[in-house]
Amino acid sequence: MKVSRRDLLAGAAGVVALGATAGAQPQEAPGDPTKVRGRPSRALGQRAPAEKPQRQPRGAASSGTPHQDLCGTITPADLHFERHHAGVPEIDPKSYTLLIHGMVERPMMFTLADLKRFPAVSRVHFLECSGNFGGRGAATDLTPQQIAGLTSTSEWTGVALATLFREVGARPQATWFLAEGGDAAVLTRSIPVSKAFDDALIAYGQNGEALRPEQGYPARLFLPGWEGNANVKWLRRIELSDRPFMTREETSKYTEPMADGSARMFSFLMDARSLITYPAYPVTLTRGWLEINGIAWTGSGKIARVDVSTDGGATWTAAKLQEPVLPKAHTRFRHVWNWTGGDAVIMSRASDETGYVQPTRESLIASRGISSVGYHINPITGWRIRADGTVVYHAEPWS
Amino acid sequence: MKVSRRDLLAGAAGVVALGATAGAQPQEAPGDPTKVRGRPSRALGQRAPAEKPQRQPRGAASSGTPHQDLCGTITPADLHFERHHAGVPEIDPKSYTLLIHGMVERPMMFTLADLKRFPAVSRVHFLECSGNFGGRGAATDLTPQQIAGLTSTSEWTGVALATLFREVGARPQATWFLAEGGDAAVLTRSIPVSKAFDDALIAYGQNGEALRPEQGYPARLFLPGWEGNANVKWLRRIELSDRPFMTREETSKYTEPMADGSARMFSFLMDARSLITYPAYPVTLTRGWLEINGIAWTGSGKIARVDVSTDGGATWTAAKLQEPVLPKAHTRFRHVWNWTGGDAVIMSRASDETGYVQPTRESLIASRGISSVGYHINPITGWRIRADGTVVYHAEPWS
Repeated sequence: MKVSRRDLLAGAAGVVALGATAGAQPQEAPGDPTKVRGRPSRALGQRAPAEKPQRQPRGAASSGTPHQDLCGTITPADLHFERHHAGVPEIDPKSYTLLIHGMVERPMMFTLADLKRFPAVSRVHFLECSGNFGGRGAATDLTPQQIAGLTSTSEWTGVALATLFREVGARPQATWFLAEGGDAAVLTRSIPVSKAFDDALIAYGQNGEALRPEQGYPARLFLPGWEGNANVKWLRRIELSDRPFMTREETSKYTEPMADGSARMFSFLMDARSLITYPAYPVTLTRGWLEINGIAWTGSGKIARVDVSTDGGATWTAAKLQEPVLPKAHTRFRHVWNWTGGDAVIMSRASDETGYVQPTRESLIASRGISSVGYHINPITGWRIRADGTVVYHAEPWS
Repeated sequence: MKVSRRDLLAGAAGVVALGATAGAQPQEAPGDPTKVRGRPSRALGQRAPAEKPQRQPRGAASSGTPHQDLCGTITPADLHFERHHAGVPEIDPKSYTLLIHGMVERPMMFTLADLKRFPAVSRVHFLECSGNFGGRGAATDLTPQQIAGLTSTSEWTGVALATLFREVGARPQATWFLAEGGDAAVLTRSIPVSKAFDDALIAYGQNGEALRPEQGYPARLFLPGWEGNANVKWLRRIELSDRPFMTREETSKYTEPMADGSARMFSFLMDARSLITYPAYPVTLTRGWLEINGIAWTGSGKIARVDVSTDGGATWTAAKLQEPVLPKAHTRFRHVWNWTGGDAVIMSRASDETGYVQPTRESLIASRGISSVGYHINPITGWRIRADGTVVYHAEPWS
């Protein structure tokens, strides 16, 4: 009978781990938890030692959400994907300001406290990087996180940009605005003013608390359903104008080369997509009934249906959608299936309320001439279940 | 120019904090974030240094959610309230089992993997301790966390208990079941089988990830809208019967003494309640327009309306409810108000879709004879704004 290191660290030396044996690791579970007084209350919860979901950094500038470890629709804030162009800045909330100027009646500077004093709104929305497609090569040992980790869903809270535009008196001829970030990239994008009067937010809250630094603390632009980089983080300035600003991030990047040599520009909208998150690499299945499930999302309102195929796309069945289906938010779909042991390919295909159907790789290439690089790549993908139960990524090679 | 301690801890010694001065604290923000490359991506996000929301332990057995620091409706998992009777056990998920037996055709033992193989459901629900009322004394320096910190809202994921009861073949004469926890309290409660066939879950997911240890990892009973302690955590056994089991936690505790000397028993339902979270102690207001906001919830379906008074209950106005209003979930209400500088008392009153209206202290005492102790105490409360802008808790003294 001895006091374990964990007990001491928890500041509860009187709590004796009866089940502990000499040399036990601090994270080893006691033999019988009903015989051991547990840990006392604490100011912040932590994950169970056996649960270790993590983002997967792709270099220093991004990291993806581990969809294979998650259930439901909300992404825990510390697992929300990140993408930045000059690292995550540390902004002092006390000295933070947002300037709104240009084609307005009254240029104004707002502090964070000013922003929080306006009527607020909370909405559950996904956010996705337009470069969110990791399955272009021939590799099949890819997880959902590697295929599509750059999308996440949070409950965002902030002030409607329309409210601020009314406050400053946006002029009728102002049709575009520049959004400028306060990070070392000073990232800038041009956004139509109509989006501000539709559903754009200046968000300062995420999943009930303050934004996390990687998601733009203390305040960011949030454009529901539109490509991640346009949702400028660490927002410090908005300038209204009668034309787009043609910034570096919308001319040298974030446009899509088309087959005819032209470029598709201002492709803000994220089209419908779906991803089976279970079963997926690297699980090994055992035979019998199981629930295929995953997430679907669209920048065009609500997901209307998700079809699932368990025969490589030959036949499709409508999956069950988890209610409530919210607009521009991850929607969990579920499909019960009996895996009898043979080789099988499972796939999912999302449709949204506008009638848009997630395309095949072939139709995406035919319509856009996409090569090995590009943004807004949302083809139907799937997983191959081998006869031994191992699961690998399945898609036709990209090029 | 020097490498800060934080840079070294982040494993990014090459990232130089140009703005750092000799003797600077690691958490000090750089002077101009546009001139300093930010932190690289990392596997887990952390809060901004200036944001320090914390649960507030009340002794070793519980801690409350800091509602005054939160916005929206979701409670971050590490800030979800906790309440336990013998500490938080550490349960090995690999050896975890749930036994269902008693009045069933086929007694069965389920592993965690077994539970996850069944069709799942995700739902956003509040969970509230029946003892969630901290404003009984004469103190006015109380925060929302101290008044009502023992309620939180999460997206819960799990298997419907009805699914498991069909699997084991619950007998028609089984009208109650015992739920037994695997912690050192081996907490037991009797629950009507009808709740299982209504909306009860065996939950293993919370806000998209595995349950946190304090919320019953790896699996708990979840009874939407019913008092917290009946939602048995670390659930290890369910026994079906034709009568309640009259356990210690439902006879010596968790019943309410009534004025006539009898006791109200099996008071599972959490009635409608509301709480203004801003403005609230300890903020100091400045004059002008602001948004009064808070949370309302009910165990009886959806919140139908929340009325706000800014004159101590003399007149009431319907607040705006944040959509979507989900059943048995915290609902954010908002009311724009111009504080012109005088002494004022603001209050909120929730009504639910059954017609139930949150009671005054007087009517609650008249109907239940509640003294200084008790469960299910949900009177209308408020905040006094003094002429100097300071805000204190306001309620008639309890006894």
